[in-house]
Amino acid sequence: MDMRRLLVIAGTALAAISMHVAPHAQGADARYVQMAEIEIDPAQLEPYQAAVKEQIEAAIRLEPGVLVLYAVSQRDNPSHIRVFEIYRDMAAYRSHLESTHFKKYKATTQNMVKSLSLVQMNPIKLGAK
Amino acid sequence: MDMRRLLVIAGTALAAISMHVAPHAQGADARYVQMAEIEIDPAQLEPYQAAVKEQIEAAIRLEPGVLVLYAVSQRDNPSHIRVFEIYRDMAAYRSHLESTHFKKYKATTQNMVKSLSLVQMNPIKLGAK
Repeated sequence: MDMRRLLVIAGTALAAISMHVAPHAQGADARYVQMAEIEIDPAQLEPYQAAVKEQIEAAIRLEPGVLVLYAVSQRDNPSHIRVFEIYRDMAAYRSHLESTHFKKYKATTQNMVKSLSLVQMNPIKLGAK
Repeated sequence: MDMRRLLVIAGTALAAISMHVAPHAQGADARYVQMAEIEIDPAQLEPYQAAVKEQIEAAIRLEPGVLVLYAVSQRDNPSHIRVFEIYRDMAAYRSHLESTHFKKYKATTQNMVKSLSLVQMNPIKLGAK
């Protein structure tokens, strides 16, 4: 393989890597980060989990500005949910709120959610592999 | 470019992608996830942030089993810190606690931390780009 072809391949690989917009990449200063603290009706935990899974899968697949949505439940208190959220910027978050999948999630879960608090966060260090 | 060469390049690319151990990749069932809820002495916020940054950079660079360490502070209450942590498994977390950089962080910050709570989490969906 000659040098020119090698350079083209290396360049393509680097472009592919830089297109993978990681939360800790350059431009991270504009990231919008928040944590949702949600308490669910314990009797409706299973359908809630199914709805949040479906919403997250769609958002990550369809929205370029949605970088991270980590939904977890407290091991000792599974009806207490936390969602750690990283968006490319505030515009990406606003666009997410208007998406079909997010609106469907809100409608599906409105009677499952006992309380919801959105805590805005300033990143100190977003470290990830 | 002939088909054989294309296949070799595609294979190399796929291998590179699968080696990037993402928190939402296969084997994610064994992941150990927790959130640290930390309150810092407001007068010592800057040195605390420097110490946690240094610790996270070292852990992500040196420990294969440390997948995610997202340290953030509440925008309306910056002395309230959250660290969202994902380890490959429980063994990786135990090994992290024994690392030089973690022990240094604990020693440096012991008089800066007013309270610390570690909340074990069960993943519902770890969605990320």
